[in-house]
Amino acid sequence: MTERLSEVETRSADGEPVNHRTIVGLRRRAKTEIRIIHAAVQVFAEQGIDAPVIDDFIKAAGIARGTFYNYFKSTDELLRATSDLLSEELITRIDKEIQMIKDPALRFGMGIRLWMRWAESNPQWCRFVARAWNSVKYDQPFKDIRECIRKKMFVVPDAYVAWDVLSGAIRQAMFKIGEGSVRRNYGDAVIHMCLQALGVREETKVQIMDMALPGAPGP
Amino acid sequence: MTERLSEVETRSADGEPVNHRTIVGLRRRAKTEIRIIHAAVQVFAEQGIDAPVIDDFIKAAGIARGTFYNYFKSTDELLRATSDLLSEELITRIDKEIQMIKDPALRFGMGIRLWMRWAESNPQWCRFVARAWNSVKYDQPFKDIRECIRKKMFVVPDAYVAWDVLSGAIRQAMFKIGEGSVRRNYGDAVIHMCLQALGVREETKVQIMDMALPGAPGP
Repeated sequence: MTERLSEVETRSADGEPVNHRTIVGLRRRAKTEIRIIHAAVQVFAEQGIDAPVIDDFIKAAGIARGTFYNYFKSTDELLRATSDLLSEELITRIDKEIQMIKDPALRFGMGIRLWMRWAESNPQWCRFVARAWNSVKYDQPFKDIRECIRKKMFVVPDAYVAWDVLSGAIRQAMFKIGEGSVRRNYGDAVIHMCLQALGVREETKVQIMDMALPGAPGP
Repeated sequence: MTERLSEVETRSADGEPVNHRTIVGLRRRAKTEIRIIHAAVQVFAEQGIDAPVIDDFIKAAGIARGTFYNYFKSTDELLRATSDLLSEELITRIDKEIQMIKDPALRFGMGIRLWMRWAESNPQWCRFVARAWNSVKYDQPFKDIRECIRKKMFVVPDAYVAWDVLSGAIRQAMFKIGEGSVRRNYGDAVIHMCLQALGVREETKVQIMDMALPGAPGP
């Protein structure tokens, strides 16, 4: 399972585990696995999260039952892998959009704004991804948090706690969006609080919230 | 289900749903339901979250299968109810400890510190409660957030967003504690970021973090 998902657990200087699972891992995945996951996206979209059984997935992917079990032990495991793939795809698209921003605080801020914009326009995606949330530490945003702490742009106890607090807050926001019960500009309000949590200076916060987002469609 | 859990959905002035489920609701619950849930706490503690089947619960509670289904449709529903009860019990104990604090920001701050202290000493409880998290808006802390916003002690877009961000952050922290992979003083670090997210003034933050907690054992 660990190898399949290309997770590499290492230890950072302060002894905490670091999750280096990234897009690189995604590329390494077996083609058959990707094929099953892409079929699963369709099946989950059509039938919802809880209804599908393994037969639905093997039929949609056009594979034998034994092949399925080579990759996934259960539909729950497939749900997680599918949710991970959808998150990774969004992160990849966002990374492309923000790579030209040099300031790490602005880059990070633009990244979470793009994530939330996507979330707000896709309640079904939110239900799905929030449900099987893994709190993977994606490379670019995690690196940006560390750089911002080093440069005193973020004032937080450490990057790991910052990641937990922000990813928890954003996941809960995605649940709410998925329930369809949020107010106008909910995403901006959540980001506003996330930036406060990071101890971002007022003028940087304003700068982040004022940046023009690249035009839709996109992430 | 809604009636059983004594949830009353109303609308606040700004049109957002308010969840008034509280300890009052807890008292109204049928005795049999409480009995099933208390038996379930034991069963989940002994067998873990995913292993138990309905027969385990009816045997432990000493009830007929039909009776079980009068209260719960599935073990998943029972898991949620059990997690809710455990949260409500903790909230009740915390409410007692903090009721004499007059300042709403200090009261709220002490409340989340007591919650996190309990969480850090009970990783198994964390795994359990975080898994079936409902993000119920408990009366006292939600009232405190509103009062603090009114008095400009918290500077946030609105109380609902504040609740989502904090409950999401705390849930994620509980997952991490449940995994057993957190650093020393992790809970304090999370609370520190939560207070920043609320836009609490520096001196209030210091005051909250410096308050002596009532001695263990307790909440």
